[in-house]
Amino acid sequence: MTTTSDRTAQHDSATSPGSADERIDVGGLSELLLGRWPEHRRAARARAGDPRFHKDETLTPAEHRERTLEQMREMVAEEDKLSWLAFPERMGGLDQPGANLACFSELVAADPSLQIKAGVQWGLFGAAILHLGTPEQQDRLLPAAMDLTVPGAFAMTETGHGSDVASIGTTATYDPATEEFVLDTPFRGAWKDYLGNAAQHATAATVFAQLITNGVDHGVHCFYVPIRETLADGSAGPFLPGVGGEDDGLKGGLRGIDNGRLHFSGVRVPRADLLARYGSVAPDGTYSSPIDSPGRRFFTMLGSLVQGRVSLDGSAVNAAKIGLAIAVKYGAERRQFAGPGVDEMVILDYATHRRRLFPRIAEAYAGHFANERLLDLFDDVFSGEHDTPENREDLETTAAALKSTSTAFALDTLQECREACGGAGFLTENRITSLRADLDVYATFEGDNTVLAQLVAKRLVGDYGRELKGATKSPAGMARFVVERAADAALHRTGLRRVTQALADVGDPRRAAGHLRDAETQRELLADRVATMVEEVAMALRPAQKAAPAEAARILDENQVALVEAARAHADLLRWEAFTDALSSIEDPATRRVMTWVRDVFGLTVIERNLTWYLLHGRLSDQRARTVTGYVDRLLLRLRPHAVDLVDAWGFGQEHLRAKIASGAEAERQDEARAYYATRRASGAAPVSEKALKKKR
Amino acid sequence: MTTTSDRTAQHDSATSPGSADERIDVGGLSELLLGRWPEHRRAARARAGDPRFHKDETLTPAEHRERTLEQMREMVAEEDKLSWLAFPERMGGLDQPGANLACFSELVAADPSLQIKAGVQWGLFGAAILHLGTPEQQDRLLPAAMDLTVPGAFAMTETGHGSDVASIGTTATYDPATEEFVLDTPFRGAWKDYLGNAAQHATAATVFAQLITNGVDHGVHCFYVPIRETLADGSAGPFLPGVGGEDDGLKGGLRGIDNGRLHFSGVRVPRADLLARYGSVAPDGTYSSPIDSPGRRFFTMLGSLVQGRVSLDGSAVNAAKIGLAIAVKYGAERRQFAGPGVDEMVILDYATHRRRLFPRIAEAYAGHFANERLLDLFDDVFSGEHDTPENREDLETTAAALKSTSTAFALDTLQECREACGGAGFLTENRITSLRADLDVYATFEGDNTVLAQLVAKRLVGDYGRELKGATKSPAGMARFVVERAADAALHRTGLRRVTQALADVGDPRRAAGHLRDAETQRELLADRVATMVEEVAMALRPAQKAAPAEAARILDENQVALVEAARAHADLLRWEAFTDALSSIEDPATRRVMTWVRDVFGLTVIERNLTWYLLHGRLSDQRARTVTGYVDRLLLRLRPHAVDLVDAWGFGQEHLRAKIASGAEAERQDEARAYYATRRASGAAPVSEKALKKKR
Repeated sequence: MTTTSDRTAQHDSATSPGSADERIDVGGLSELLLGRWPEHRRAARARAGDPRFHKDETLTPAEHRERTLEQMREMVAEEDKLSWLAFPERMGGLDQPGANLACFSELVAADPSLQIKAGVQWGLFGAAILHLGTPEQQDRLLPAAMDLTVPGAFAMTETGHGSDVASIGTTATYDPATEEFVLDTPFRGAWKDYLGNAAQHATAATVFAQLITNGVDHGVHCFYVPIRETLADGSAGPFLPGVGGEDDGLKGGLRGIDNGRLHFSGVRVPRADLLARYGSVAPDGTYSSPIDSPGRRFFTMLGSLVQGRVSLDGSAVNAAKIGLAIAVKYGAERRQFAGPGVDEMVILDYATHRRRLFPRIAEAYAGHFANERLLDLFDDVFSGEHDTPENREDLETTAAALKSTSTAFALDTLQECREACGGAGFLTENRITSLRADLDVYATFEGDNTVLAQLVAKRLVGDYGRELKGATKSPAGMARFVVERAADAALHRTGLRRVTQALADVGDPRRAAGHLRDAETQRELLADRVATMVEEVAMALRPAQKAAPAEAARILDENQVALVEAARAHADLLRWEAFTDALSSIEDPATRRVMTWVRDVFGLTVIERNLTWYLLHGRLSDQRARTVTGYVDRLLLRLRPHAVDLVDAWGFGQEHLRAKIASGAEAERQDEARAYYATRRASGAAPVSEKALKKKR
Repeated sequence: MTTTSDRTAQHDSATSPGSADERIDVGGLSELLLGRWPEHRRAARARAGDPRFHKDETLTPAEHRERTLEQMREMVAEEDKLSWLAFPERMGGLDQPGANLACFSELVAADPSLQIKAGVQWGLFGAAILHLGTPEQQDRLLPAAMDLTVPGAFAMTETGHGSDVASIGTTATYDPATEEFVLDTPFRGAWKDYLGNAAQHATAATVFAQLITNGVDHGVHCFYVPIRETLADGSAGPFLPGVGGEDDGLKGGLRGIDNGRLHFSGVRVPRADLLARYGSVAPDGTYSSPIDSPGRRFFTMLGSLVQGRVSLDGSAVNAAKIGLAIAVKYGAERRQFAGPGVDEMVILDYATHRRRLFPRIAEAYAGHFANERLLDLFDDVFSGEHDTPENREDLETTAAALKSTSTAFALDTLQECREACGGAGFLTENRITSLRADLDVYATFEGDNTVLAQLVAKRLVGDYGRELKGATKSPAGMARFVVERAADAALHRTGLRRVTQALADVGDPRRAAGHLRDAETQRELLADRVATMVEEVAMALRPAQKAAPAEAARILDENQVALVEAARAHADLLRWEAFTDALSSIEDPATRRVMTWVRDVFGLTVIERNLTWYLLHGRLSDQRARTVTGYVDRLLLRLRPHAVDLVDAWGFGQEHLRAKIASGAEAERQDEARAYYATRRASGAAPVSEKALKKKR
């Protein structure tokens, strides 16, 4: 996919590779990046490249909504049944939860509206039935959700409660007289809100409400609730009695989705339609659940829906890749300002341009490998192969850490790419603004990024506290704990290494600049930072356990920013570890060498970003810290000849990028302009410049 | 404008002010912020609050374009003639260049499309005639540009050349036989591109082209060129012969503007329509100019159009303020997760939320005061009162420094505000996504931010070099230079203080944490950083002067990122200085105290962001550096009770914010929900929670 012009541009540059055999094996790397389910990925990528599924920027929001639903019907009609990968074989699915998410994350290249509306239908509405329902309920309700006979909404979030789902206001009160639940929205803040499919297309919803029976509130449960009539042609008719709602109207992006609000007044739901896997009510109103603790029950239910976060992580990384591929391909052709010779310089040859784009290429690779690992973990749990409580918890923590990191990364990257393409980047025909607008809310739905980071950090602090508690029961235990923390070099399940590096390397000659390229040095620096931050926060939070509520709140408040920072450091480590592990599966030496530089860029820019921390914690000497930026800059220069190859390896074709500036048009224009000037010079008809004349005088 | 609910929210918080007299005098501060032309500002803000000029989110792009033109016609018809403030009195203008830009920057609150289309018409097309034309040309061409008889495009940028205007490809070749210039677009890359008004409405354009006469290319000049027929109803008809073009199509924002491309084939322009203030051609083709140096002539022409940058700076600050006002008002009402008591916590009481929003409030204030100072400088030059070459150069440098900083700040802030408002932030009804999409390209037009930063840095390095050169001519000069650099505490015109602080404060007990709040400490830290960075880059670049082209390019490349960093540091200092100066004009003691904290937050977060630099350059001891973050956090907590007041003082009413979540609706919903639960508890009918039951057991 690298055009002749790219090659020319690269050889123009002072930094072109010495010989062809130093180049990346783009095909081989691309193959590796297909991951664990290469055939599925390939099929899903081909689907995302099919014009039938592409975002049409010219549609009105109303037309876009209809088209998106139509596209989903076409997806159902496809022979490959890619949309049903996660559903049970007994109902036509393929029982492949990991492959399903891998495919889903490719769909972002077609149209994020299509991706998210499909996600609402199959990944939320359908998944709620699958994961919260009994086998009987699955058999009864899933087929219509799968084949779109029943388009559905996932009615969890309320206007008044998003992040804090446990506090939603909707009630489902059991009435033993009729064996029904009565669904009510007691106040405006309890309206369900922001729900995809709810404004127009959904004829049913999985509604989360406080289950009340016999005067006891058993907390949040999910109910299957028809909300609209289905008309003769299969489309959604008016609301059913007791159901109301409104359209959320225009949004900053994802305008192909009909988000809306719903409310309920005395809507009667048959007892059988409480999705009853984790809690059921007997005819007389007696509640029972396989999970005794209401808290654990709630988190188990929510945890069964973790796939949303996993799939957004992969999607965000893909979106960032698309932006980077566009900006790098354009940057490799675009010229501006005269360089040392006669020609204008390719903008990718500017140090500022490399700084804007290359560390983000590295981070996209890190995010890619981390998502592959997350998919593995997800498949382990949801295929049932290794479905343990510990794995579920690890999965949830890792998903929260990566989703909150990658969605923020994607937005930042798309913006940088937009600006790096100048005015051309602002045109819809060059894709980036459209993609960014659609991705915006990925930072919020399926868990607000800040709230997710806190969740991750609390888990890390909790782990630390449990280990400490266990250890300190005896002097021997305490000693073991200390030794383990010092020596354990093995990767913790969630990637948190137990490494202390209490001794700073101040003055240590072995810690010279060159050591920064050493993987072990990077690992230690990244891992130590997580461990130390967690330890510091844990220690700072300890007094809160025995403090009065107000004082406890103050202590938590004082450490909240540090909690979020620790979670981010953890995500950095996870990604670095995943990248480093992946290096060992690259066989081509040149590719592995270049990819090692890319990994180094990721690791060292993370360290560079947090250099203050390393300095203040005595982990890096001033002398060594001073070398970091210079070393990164040298690495970026070294990567320059490989930039186009690195983005080509992601495997997106023109049918995925769909940006005129990344199509080779810019190189054609440059060639035409240069040919014009050359011809004019050769003809002798070129005007002399006044500047040149004055210099002569 | 602070509602009762805000007050309640604030008093709920642990951080409420002790007594009423500690509160900010919102009215007084608001008055102060109106600046040098309060009446004009007030009128312009009222106009921006007028629904006739508001962005209508429901329009199609085609309808939006028509409406924007219509709004401009209404603006012309207004009695206040706010749009003509900058034009000469002799043609109905008011000759008030500074007030004009102050008013222009308020228009962003109405609709950025309207603002920028008005900017194209009066601030670019009209301004080109005004500043590049002779009095005769002004008299002949300006009136129709002013009253919209001739909607115009500003045809400078080409597809192939944006930042490097000197290299545009369009040619204007003089033909003495007919006393005309022949305008040509020699290749596709030389098409004019991204021009507002060009796709549909413009009937003329100010076209920049290489002026060629008698075989000599005199560089870029501007020509007045009719491009479309004017139809009987006054609207634009088809292209005139030789002119062609196309629509830029959809954009990421500003969809109310018809951006497009233009090209020319043998279009004949009368000799009289070369805008001839800085260069003219006699009938026989002899070129003459009041400025002998082609380079200086070019930069003088471009510099006369600096107002675009000045006005975008103020507009970007205003857009950021709107986003912050929405997010802060919502955050002061929105509750999520139970706090220490029974009630859920107001989200503005979370440390993470304060960290997201408050430093940006401080930066918006800093940006506001810096823009006021920039407007002063602009008015000084363009009113003719102090129009010296030095002032022009300072104006251009300061405008470039601030525009590149504030537009980036606005985008970052609007995104943070969007996310801080959660899913609600993504709805168009809450404004932020729409505003952000429109502001996106402010980072690119009127000068790409990265290119502008380099321009600023080169100027600073040049100044340094000149001083050094002058100084080193004699030993006495050198000594004076050194002393001046060490002792000069007066503000340099462009805000760059000549302060060296070669001695680090390591171990100095006077430099304890408390000193960070001292203005002189902040000033020294900020100014020293700029001076040192400039000096370092200047020294690093010196070998380039005598190096071969390729080596010189390599040296420049190696220092390019540092150049950009130095420019940003300079902008930080400019803003801090402007903020600090403004404090002295605040009379109310409580207001001044709170605003001093706000200034401290700005200064200290800038220092915090660059802490690595301060540590590695020995400007802060580890001990002192460690106190920065904690001190900032305490300041943010201290500002909590004043947050709503601080955004209210910006003087935007509901008619400017136009966000449902900032209208008090959230507080109403919260009150309703709490009333519901209170009533239910009082009635004795509230269900008992399973959790509570299990705890009892």
